[in-house]
Amino acid sequence: MAEGEDIGVDRAVRAARRVVEGLVRHGAEGGADLDVVAEELESIADRLEAGCPPLADRVRAMWDTERLEMTRHDPVTGPENALAPPLHVQGRSDREVSGEVTLGLAHQGPPGHAHGGVTALLLDHLLGMANHWAGTAGMTMKLTLRYRRRTPLFVPLTVRARQTSVEGRRITTTGEICDPDGEVCVSAEGLFAALDVSGTSREAAQRLAAD
Amino acid sequence: MAEGEDIGVDRAVRAARRVVEGLVRHGAEGGADLDVVAEELESIADRLEAGCPPLADRVRAMWDTERLEMTRHDPVTGPENALAPPLHVQGRSDREVSGEVTLGLAHQGPPGHAHGGVTALLLDHLLGMANHWAGTAGMTMKLTLRYRRRTPLFVPLTVRARQTSVEGRRITTTGEICDPDGEVCVSAEGLFAALDVSGTSREAAQRLAAD
Repeated sequence: MAEGEDIGVDRAVRAARRVVEGLVRHGAEGGADLDVVAEELESIADRLEAGCPPLADRVRAMWDTERLEMTRHDPVTGPENALAPPLHVQGRSDREVSGEVTLGLAHQGPPGHAHGGVTALLLDHLLGMANHWAGTAGMTMKLTLRYRRRTPLFVPLTVRARQTSVEGRRITTTGEICDPDGEVCVSAEGLFAALDVSGTSREAAQRLAAD
Repeated sequence: MAEGEDIGVDRAVRAARRVVEGLVRHGAEGGADLDVVAEELESIADRLEAGCPPLADRVRAMWDTERLEMTRHDPVTGPENALAPPLHVQGRSDREVSGEVTLGLAHQGPPGHAHGGVTALLLDHLLGMANHWAGTAGMTMKLTLRYRRRTPLFVPLTVRARQTSVEGRRITTTGEICDPDGEVCVSAEGLFAALDVSGTSREAAQRLAAD
């Protein structure tokens, strides 16, 4: 699960992440000419929208991979998705997946700290990756998050997850986000229903493409 | 809790949302010149970063509002935050808050459907808004999400939340996301510890500003 190579869109997405964070940091009171920025962004959006492949083709291409644990488009790790902070994830030999991420002002909940929903997004995704990594993926049925202390912005956080049990179709997976001192900020427990995600994802993408 | 007026940065943020979605829709295979797009986005990011006020000033300005239930910068509803889909929320007379949102390909989890972590983000935020709206805000202690059916992309979803009990400092709040047919896709229950958020947020922003 190393990072993918830089294939064209990745550089634009990295710059778009800087724009998103830059806009939040800048706000209405900063020194840049926001009318010019808006016009330029609208021009870029126009060209991207004009250049898009048909949606069905794009969805099929997204899911046409053997490595469903590491999609390129998802909103947590995806190098093609500027919503992704991104979280950089690695599979570990002890059946755990582990990632590192630094959140910015765009991810703020309480002053100077991460939004609880953003940490939920990171954990939900990493629990799913842990299931893929362990070899039995599933659909989330229930996700429980416990907020133990505020999660800081602007410092490297560690996010970990591991599948703890598979009983019939019932998968249990846990994870946590830790601050740089190793203290757990948020922990998560997920209950999943096992499925053949590989087949299911491709079939679903094909159905969507056929609509 | 009507939408804020359009104060300069909002138009740029709306365009940035189109860029984020456009990049995911476009991918590496679309027809736009991605090197040019990347260069233009880098130029915009440079100017925004150069024009940013000092972080402490920006954080203080963000929280210097009487309307803490409706921040302008948050990653769910914020007109200054391109991460926000955005969810458009209104307070209702029956003590419920209710919002509408349409998710795009950038929010995809399973093929053609919303990421479970994105729906968790929306619900976490709206539960917090419901607490503000009800007059007793709190810190999230525990959040439980139940995924009942897949949440569709590209159609208007309804997100609702209401505070169901306050016992001492213990607040319970529930909410759900419904598809256009009114079927519940995801439901949430949050347990919060009551606090004087108004004072706390301002004080925290001031502490951060003093660092």
